[in-house]
Amino acid sequence: MIELLLVGVGAGNPKHLTLEAIEVLNSADLILIPRKGTGKDDLAELRRAICRDVLSDGGPRQHEFDLPVRDRSTPDYLKRVEDWHDAIADVWAENITAQAGPSGRVAFLVWGDPSLYDSTLRIAERVARKLPLQITVIPGITSVQALTAGHVIPVNGLGAPFTITTGRRLRDFGWPDGAETLVVMLDAGGAFEVLDGQHYDIWWSAFAGMPEEIRIAGRLSDVAAQIIDTRAAARADHGWIMDVYLIRKRP
Amino acid sequence: MIELLLVGVGAGNPKHLTLEAIEVLNSADLILIPRKGTGKDDLAELRRAICRDVLSDGGPRQHEFDLPVRDRSTPDYLKRVEDWHDAIADVWAENITAQAGPSGRVAFLVWGDPSLYDSTLRIAERVARKLPLQITVIPGITSVQALTAGHVIPVNGLGAPFTITTGRRLRDFGWPDGAETLVVMLDAGGAFEVLDGQHYDIWWSAFAGMPEEIRIAGRLSDVAAQIIDTRAAARADHGWIMDVYLIRKRP
Ligand SMILES: C[S@@+](CC[C@H](N)C(=O)[O-])C[C@H]1O[C@@H](n2cnc3c(N)ncnc32)[C@H](O)[C@@H]1O
Ligand SMILES: C[S@@+](CC[C@H](N)C(=O)[O-])C[C@H]1O[C@@H](n2cnc3c(N)ncnc32)[C@H](O)[C@@H]1O
Repeated sequence: MIELLLVGVGAGNPKHLTLEAIEVLNSADLILIPRKGTGKDDLAELRRAICRDVLSDGGPRQHEFDLPVRDRSTPDYLKRVEDWHDAIADVWAENITAQAGPSGRVAFLVWGDPSLYDSTLRIAERVARKLPLQITVIPGITSVQALTAGHVIPVNGLGAPFTITTGRRLRDFGWPDGAETLVVMLDAGGAFEVLDGQHYDIWWSAFAGMPEEIRIAGRLSDVAAQIIDTRAAARADHGWIMDVYLIRKRP
Repeated sequence: MIELLLVGVGAGNPKHLTLEAIEVLNSADLILIPRKGTGKDDLAELRRAICRDVLSDGGPRQHEFDLPVRDRSTPDYLKRVEDWHDAIADVWAENITAQAGPSGRVAFLVWGDPSLYDSTLRIAERVARKLPLQITVIPGITSVQALTAGHVIPVNGLGAPFTITTGRRLRDFGWPDGAETLVVMLDAGGAFEVLDGQHYDIWWSAFAGMPEEIRIAGRLSDVAAQIIDTRAAARADHGWIMDVYLIRKRP
């Protein structure tokens, strides 16, 4: 039986690693590092840096492998994602079997927290249908927490609910009925333009928790253009960008 | 100028402390530990244990103080909470001034993450109106992450939004329109009874991330009674309980 360790490592700040994450990574026999290709949004280098920082000498062996490319021709979004997860699960299973044999502790470093908009758990479940596998999840600091910490704000209104969603959802369906606070992740850029900015406040961070962190906050109508420009410039500069934001209805 | 450090320490598992939290706590001049009274739900002892574990010798001085008691006679819930936060802010300001003088780094250990259903930030803002204060927030692992890690589940459906709310809200307003996944915190017990359990799955954890962790999962109609009984028994056993759960609409 293989033990699969899905270790949340925070959203870019290596100091966000928990004691548990460091302990579990060091206890692994093997750390698998998937490579997404040659783009700069390849987080493999950040994963390597974390391994250099926290693994003790004589710690687990590291092995890198290439992920399959997503087939952009499948028209249906969910179907396309499901197919892609299937393809990745095949590659995971091959690499686990080849590198770890029938037993052993195999760790993956997961960006942020493994529960939050991340495919690792869904892929691991697929692998568990092919190989005898026990899955352990180690929580990590999310980008949402890096956002609210940087802006020094609570995520919820007093005793009030909040919703976390994607840029795609906000763009396609607008502001969710009854919501007061919305956190938006995975926005390809400016999904908030569907809102009438006068009625909302926004707190926006790119590279939250990282040395390059950029923060903009204000009434959405006042700062929307500035966010879009800043995002485009930062993206051009770095070659990639990750941003997250919180929007609250104005009272 | 006082530097106020609001340090998320995770929701009960001392290994959930981040490297940053440990570094910042050790860099403080003073750690203030509020006491809530003599009840067993007093988390002061857990805070003391964390200080014992992670503070280096010759580290910051610790000072404990008593919090005012919440005035249960104010009928309006929000007004009652606001008044209570005002009263706590007064006590914080007194203790900061008396113990740290006009400058210095003063840390508070905050349960879970300081952004999530926690009054610390709201109190700190009030203190900042009385004293020159710079507030820094250090994120911590939340009970929601401890819940999903323990059950090995994602918090969101594939590309789908989710809402985090309180037991009071669920009880008073029922299932939020359009929601598919709901995470419920601060439930005094069994708020999910307002739902028709046949149409929902639940993942419930008490003492998530702690040695006493209890997990129950299943179709809500099958496990609701078991959760209520288990919760009552565990609460009687320990003298206090903290639980959190995720509910998903069945497809
Ligand atoms: C695939 S999701 C992974 C989320 C991750 N599991 C977490 O816990 O934050 C990627 C999205 O997370 C957000 N994100 C991740 N890291 C970020 C960072 N350092 N700064 C801003 N946003 C970030 C962005 O919205 C990005 O589109
Ligand atoms: C005042 S809120 C604080 C939440 C905290 N800031 C966090 O990040 O989890 C207290 C509520 O958090 C949840 N909670 C906190 N710690 C918990 C734990 N170890 N297990 C289960 N629920 C917990 C419960 O719903 C509890 O009623």
